[in-house]
Amino acid sequence: MQFNNFSSQTEEHSERNAQGMTVVLFGATGDLAKRKLFPALYNLYVENKMPKAFSVIGLGRTPYTDDVFQTKVEQSLRTYSRGNVEDEGLQPFLNSFRYCTFDATEITSYKKLNELIGQRERELAIPENRLFYLSVAPSLIDVITSNLNTSGIIQTSGWKRLIVEKPFGSDLASARDLNEKLRTAFHEDEIYRIDHYLGKPMVQNLETLILVNPVLDSLFNHKLIANVQITASETVGVETRAPYYDKAGAIRDMVQNHMLQLVMMTALHLPKKAQPEEIRTKKVEIMEALRPIHEENLQTDLIRAQYDKGEIFGIDVPAYREEPGVPNSSMNDTYIAARLFIDNEFWKGIPFYIRTGKRLDKKSTRIVFEFKERPTLMEDYHPEGLAPNLLILEISPNESISLQVNMKDPSTNRFQPSTITFTTNSSNQPEAYELLLHDAMLGNATFFANWKEVELSWQWIQPLLEAFEENRLPLVSYAAGSTGPKEAKQLLAKDHVNWW
Amino acid sequence: MQFNNFSSQTEEHSERNAQGMTVVLFGATGDLAKRKLFPALYNLYVENKMPKAFSVIGLGRTPYTDDVFQTKVEQSLRTYSRGNVEDEGLQPFLNSFRYCTFDATEITSYKKLNELIGQRERELAIPENRLFYLSVAPSLIDVITSNLNTSGIIQTSGWKRLIVEKPFGSDLASARDLNEKLRTAFHEDEIYRIDHYLGKPMVQNLETLILVNPVLDSLFNHKLIANVQITASETVGVETRAPYYDKAGAIRDMVQNHMLQLVMMTALHLPKKAQPEEIRTKKVEIMEALRPIHEENLQTDLIRAQYDKGEIFGIDVPAYREEPGVPNSSMNDTYIAARLFIDNEFWKGIPFYIRTGKRLDKKSTRIVFEFKERPTLMEDYHPEGLAPNLLILEISPNESISLQVNMKDPSTNRFQPSTITFTTNSSNQPEAYELLLHDAMLGNATFFANWKEVELSWQWIQPLLEAFEENRLPLVSYAAGSTGPKEAKQLLAKDHVNWW
Repeated sequence: MQFNNFSSQTEEHSERNAQGMTVVLFGATGDLAKRKLFPALYNLYVENKMPKAFSVIGLGRTPYTDDVFQTKVEQSLRTYSRGNVEDEGLQPFLNSFRYCTFDATEITSYKKLNELIGQRERELAIPENRLFYLSVAPSLIDVITSNLNTSGIIQTSGWKRLIVEKPFGSDLASARDLNEKLRTAFHEDEIYRIDHYLGKPMVQNLETLILVNPVLDSLFNHKLIANVQITASETVGVETRAPYYDKAGAIRDMVQNHMLQLVMMTALHLPKKAQPEEIRTKKVEIMEALRPIHEENLQTDLIRAQYDKGEIFGIDVPAYREEPGVPNSSMNDTYIAARLFIDNEFWKGIPFYIRTGKRLDKKSTRIVFEFKERPTLMEDYHPEGLAPNLLILEISPNESISLQVNMKDPSTNRFQPSTITFTTNSSNQPEAYELLLHDAMLGNATFFANWKEVELSWQWIQPLLEAFEENRLPLVSYAAGSTGPKEAKQLLAKDHVNWW
Repeated sequence: MQFNNFSSQTEEHSERNAQGMTVVLFGATGDLAKRKLFPALYNLYVENKMPKAFSVIGLGRTPYTDDVFQTKVEQSLRTYSRGNVEDEGLQPFLNSFRYCTFDATEITSYKKLNELIGQRERELAIPENRLFYLSVAPSLIDVITSNLNTSGIIQTSGWKRLIVEKPFGSDLASARDLNEKLRTAFHEDEIYRIDHYLGKPMVQNLETLILVNPVLDSLFNHKLIANVQITASETVGVETRAPYYDKAGAIRDMVQNHMLQLVMMTALHLPKKAQPEEIRTKKVEIMEALRPIHEENLQTDLIRAQYDKGEIFGIDVPAYREEPGVPNSSMNDTYIAARLFIDNEFWKGIPFYIRTGKRLDKKSTRIVFEFKERPTLMEDYHPEGLAPNLLILEISPNESISLQVNMKDPSTNRFQPSTITFTTNSSNQPEAYELLLHDAMLGNATFFANWKEVELSWQWIQPLLEAFEENRLPLVSYAAGSTGPKEAKQLLAKDHVNWW
């Protein structure tokens, strides 16, 4: 194990510009590289956020020449880049890319890779800063970390960092096991566990938006907030991912990582601009304060559901159990709703309602704060048409902040809810992967999941996985294209609350 | 004097539907009747807010037959009504109108009027509820009230009410004198002093909007508000009104009535839904707490200005002194800006900046609340591009509530102010005169200026009138089409504040 550059790691949190480096991309022929990573690197390059000199080395089993690989990168940019691809500067960008035909289980592949990395570092006169991006099957991680160690690739005079994609384990034990493997080659501070929900600009803005806006800050008042609702709904079904998804379910695929990360980010309430370390500490405190769903609350606080056949955008779609690759008798969850409580001073008594599912009526990720009625209002004044005030943070597909207030229609003298929306110029927002890659290059781990958070999330989820396994909670169903199962409505109706 | 129906007056505050009544319109051939009052009556009629049976009697010097008068009313509706004029119901509406050729100085005119009112009341089987609308020159008010008394018109078995238009006096003494004249015929509770700014839906909504919206309520916090700015700017010049305006100036024409009423309405902060009486009491308390501008503060807290020649919407326009009917040496104010303080617990230390003028760059009436920076923000975090948070209540020409917050552009990581606007369906909002006429018909005086408010306003203004008269304050100038004199900017710059 090499921790020789650990002390310099902390200083790098304050880096403003990325240093010359090598990006080593395991899984360079995969979908993520093509759709997200190449375009992200390109847009960072266009916006002068890449170092002056950098080397990208793509790894894959399929043999390509550098030329063919560069052409594939160019095709990816032209297809998926959020901005126009300009001829100017394109060739120097593509020239930074090399390809190395690679078998992750063969030590000779690593030796060849090590030589190529070193050769490019010398050619470009860049430091031995190495960023490893693991976009591979979880089963390969063991052998890759072991070979990285043996081959000497990570014995570098510069820094080394590892970006890992989800899934990060499939339960508490496997996550711990995976983490131990990674830790044989990388220090915790060198591991960047990606959760692309943390890369969404709205999520990243949340903290500072409140800091710089006294009007939003004044709303973050536990006396005002009635409840918080976090929704991540998809219209797609299981698609081609049945082999993975039917084992994972929404609980692992969405709740353990994305939903709990959104809960942590939402519940952060910082009195002033915080350092990355303070944010991580606070997130861990929130996970520790997240009340477990005990056996006796399973039925009242949790809904698991699976989609039945239905209609979406006017097209008939099959039930989950009829999807290709899904067993007829599958008890897998494609939808989860839950009522959570964070037992700390600020959030005491304020429920967090979360829900996520596939094949719902629309694609949307959002955080909604519902506000209490003005306490004295109802004493002697009962106007009609009022709805709760809402602060809505839309994370995707569009980024916006909306506020719902009650406005009066003077001709009828009735109130009606009116919603206004703040948007930034969102037509050309950076993508999550762009922001996260840039952060990792700068050594800023604020918007990555640290091990303690991940472990606590699995720990919180573990009893639910077991309850599902043992069918201690009914699996209810919902029609594809609907807003979810009626049981999820009932979950909130008990608290006299609606989903927004 | 007749107060026989005073005790029933209070009960009528809770009326939901107007009772059968006669509207007697002094000045029925004038501009206000044509542009505002006939359309207002018509729209109330269309929206079923007029009583089932009602009589309107127009008075004017020009002799018309009822037919001609009804045709003139119809023309007015077709030209000025905010909604379409439908054939259905139009004839019955017009049939309610009668005309009486009238000389306000001749007692015989009143006798004829009295007979006509009674005859129509019997024909329509409506109670002797009589609403007198005085849209006449102030000089006529004396003789009209005296003749109303003598003629017996106001000796009615129903209620009687008087609506008076501005100007309500030209200084403290004349306002008191006018009020005494009115009081020879009407009780204070029967007098509805119209200030059409109080009829604007946004002004009328202000109180309840805060009550029913906890997020707006939470902003009404004296710890959060840095200052309040009230602007009423016009693009028009003096037009044909020089004989009146050159004597009145902006101080009488706008500040004494409209601006101070807006200050009172803005400063109202009611813990719960208030009765009309409570609102009036609170407004009087605010006027009493409004710190006088003493001699020593004249130079620092008040700006008076007159427009010079300039350009507006690309057209050259003359200086005020070159306008038809304005003396070459006029020292009249066409613009006033002032810094006010309300010495009560809530508004202590929070300045109200007000400004109003003719020939400014745009037509707009609005109230802006500027919020303080988050107190702890600046300790160690100084992002660029921040602007103060603002709550903007646009009263005219459009009605809206906007909020300005700082949003982050993730690609540059810079903040920039972003404004969002709540609008009700404002394409077909009722006009101020409609709401106010309806209130007067229902006996609800909440949105009329009561005598105590008017007297206190004149009392507050009086020393300024004298200072102007004696030229103890410089008269500065501003180019027509500009945002006002540079001295108004300096007034706020001393407090490190900008006009919004």
